[in-house]
Amino acid sequence: MAVSLDQISTPGRVAEPGEGISVDELRLASRNHAMPLEAMRDDLTPPGLHYVLTHYDMPAVDPGSWRLTLDGAVERPLDLDLAALRSLPSRTVRVTLECAGNGRTGLTPRPVSQPWLTGAVGTAEWTGVPLAGLLRDAGPSPAAVDVVFAGADHGFERGVEQDYQRGLPLAEALGDDVLLAYAMNGEPLPLQHGRPLRLVVPGWYGMAHVKWLRSVTVITHEFDGFQNAVAYRFRQSAEEPGEPVTRIEPRALLVPPGHPDFMTRERILRPGPVTLSGRAWSGWGPVVRVELSTDDGRTWADTELTGESHRWAWRGFSAPFEATPGRHVLRVRAHDATGRVQRQEPQWNRGGFANNADEPVTVHVLDA
Amino acid sequence: MAVSLDQISTPGRVAEPGEGISVDELRLASRNHAMPLEAMRDDLTPPGLHYVLTHYDMPAVDPGSWRLTLDGAVERPLDLDLAALRSLPSRTVRVTLECAGNGRTGLTPRPVSQPWLTGAVGTAEWTGVPLAGLLRDAGPSPAAVDVVFAGADHGFERGVEQDYQRGLPLAEALGDDVLLAYAMNGEPLPLQHGRPLRLVVPGWYGMAHVKWLRSVTVITHEFDGFQNAVAYRFRQSAEEPGEPVTRIEPRALLVPPGHPDFMTRERILRPGPVTLSGRAWSGWGPVVRVELSTDDGRTWADTELTGESHRWAWRGFSAPFEATPGRHVLRVRAHDATGRVQRQEPQWNRGGFANNADEPVTVHVLDA
Repeated sequence: MAVSLDQISTPGRVAEPGEGISVDELRLASRNHAMPLEAMRDDLTPPGLHYVLTHYDMPAVDPGSWRLTLDGAVERPLDLDLAALRSLPSRTVRVTLECAGNGRTGLTPRPVSQPWLTGAVGTAEWTGVPLAGLLRDAGPSPAAVDVVFAGADHGFERGVEQDYQRGLPLAEALGDDVLLAYAMNGEPLPLQHGRPLRLVVPGWYGMAHVKWLRSVTVITHEFDGFQNAVAYRFRQSAEEPGEPVTRIEPRALLVPPGHPDFMTRERILRPGPVTLSGRAWSGWGPVVRVELSTDDGRTWADTELTGESHRWAWRGFSAPFEATPGRHVLRVRAHDATGRVQRQEPQWNRGGFANNADEPVTVHVLDA
Repeated sequence: MAVSLDQISTPGRVAEPGEGISVDELRLASRNHAMPLEAMRDDLTPPGLHYVLTHYDMPAVDPGSWRLTLDGAVERPLDLDLAALRSLPSRTVRVTLECAGNGRTGLTPRPVSQPWLTGAVGTAEWTGVPLAGLLRDAGPSPAAVDVVFAGADHGFERGVEQDYQRGLPLAEALGDDVLLAYAMNGEPLPLQHGRPLRLVVPGWYGMAHVKWLRSVTVITHEFDGFQNAVAYRFRQSAEEPGEPVTRIEPRALLVPPGHPDFMTRERILRPGPVTLSGRAWSGWGPVVRVELSTDDGRTWADTELTGESHRWAWRGFSAPFEATPGRHVLRVRAHDATGRVQRQEPQWNRGGFANNADEPVTVHVLDA
């Protein structure tokens, strides 16, 4: 009985009206994980709390024999082991990383893929070698257009066998804070975050931050591989070419106040004053304002921005809330320095990308 | 509008026939996470790959001001800070921890709770103070029956507000390898594994290993708190008292061979010889035999047990497989030294506990 790949590795699809989450989606949700929102109490997110999405399996890579090549349209190709990379000048950058599919399950109809709610995010300090210096050492051709990053993770997706690969425009790859990172929060990269090396492209959604990185290739045309040309594009229908998914849209999330119910995760509080807090970020520019509504969006007031501002990382915010008995619906909304404002309603696209609509948090305040 | 707790924190239920996974279940699946099965390549599972289940929120606990009390029916109550605990003789034990609800989603009808498939497991080396010595120092009353462990995590469950608490029979609590653990794989406990201290009860399902532990109380009756008397019991109907969930049933799982499809996680191989491998464990006794079927359970053959045997941790196994073009269904089945054998068919119970039925792995071998 011959195996037909198109029955195993099937086209993208959108859920039928009323279709519950499938076991396929649940299997992805079990493997990959979101950040529990209470982890936003801390500035940095450790492994195990930081979100993870792995397209295929985490590959078995031996850091001892691992090598990185940098070649293609360059004058002087490079071939480096981990010790050589670690001996180069390094840089540490605090970066909020968010999956492009965060919020997907809030779309109707639901694109069938990794079924993220809102927690596919995390903030870490990544340490590594600035890519720009290595690219300049290699000497890209004047005709260079894109830089292609390939990981050691291998699998199938909509019928296409592939190593995970992403192209990035050369001008973006030359950004000061783009890193070949070998450490996360001061420790060697954990397996699930790309051990021994990953790309970090601050401000971009997670698909750009190639893990288990083993080759960097400069090319003189636009990269047309699966993850750029097929997967991560904004489309209304399967047929149109669509626009590429790039930088992170602004979003604010609350640390859920009070205590949860185990099963429903509804939030339960006692009456009295509460300090609400949370985090807000944007890949386009620093967050300059976060608004709070405690009446489901009818009225809004500014919160106070807290902590330090980091170019590529989330910003804290807080606001007082007088919890009175009854049910209250809280919403928050981020604004960034480029004038972008978090959406209040989802904007549907077939891949379920960049849904940054604000997420209501219902709190139930018990009688005194 | 007064808040009615029974509308927010609702009774346990079983899914309707054909009911897809709900958003409530998905929310739990996003917060908590399974171990990606390829992590079984390694003897030890690091944070972020080891499974995690948190009933409520992870509490904010300051290790600097944290204290543990040991009191109740004892002659000499104890009150210790973390430095005092760390100064006591310690012990390191390798333990395979599995959630009692692992395999729940394989049951029909599906109990509605954390919707685990099969990956709610992990193996770590836990370091801490043997509980038996502390209990003996405190001098339990001759009338002592149970020891109650309370964590700092607080929430609501089926209408009951509670700190997470579990009782353990005194005889079990006096086991040599029961630890008050402050380190996992040689590092201080990560937040999600109970920082700064958790109970480790080798051989028992995860619900016994109380995280964020702050009190140990010896009592002279059987503990009747929610997690013992209501939650973790084997029942066929909601009305019966049921039997308590205790030790881990035998289970073997394969490291998935070949490469996956992103969405369906179906496994795809090329023809040729393959070494299949995996891990097997039981909380009742050491694994002594693991069988493999490559024809969906029609015929079985013994695999080779690999690596060292550890009293409380999984054992490796491997077997050759000649991958010929077509579709093959692989199954594995563990036997332990007490004569317990992994089930081939699920045994239904209303809470969805201890479903250790073997899980078929379908592999698709392409033409050469």
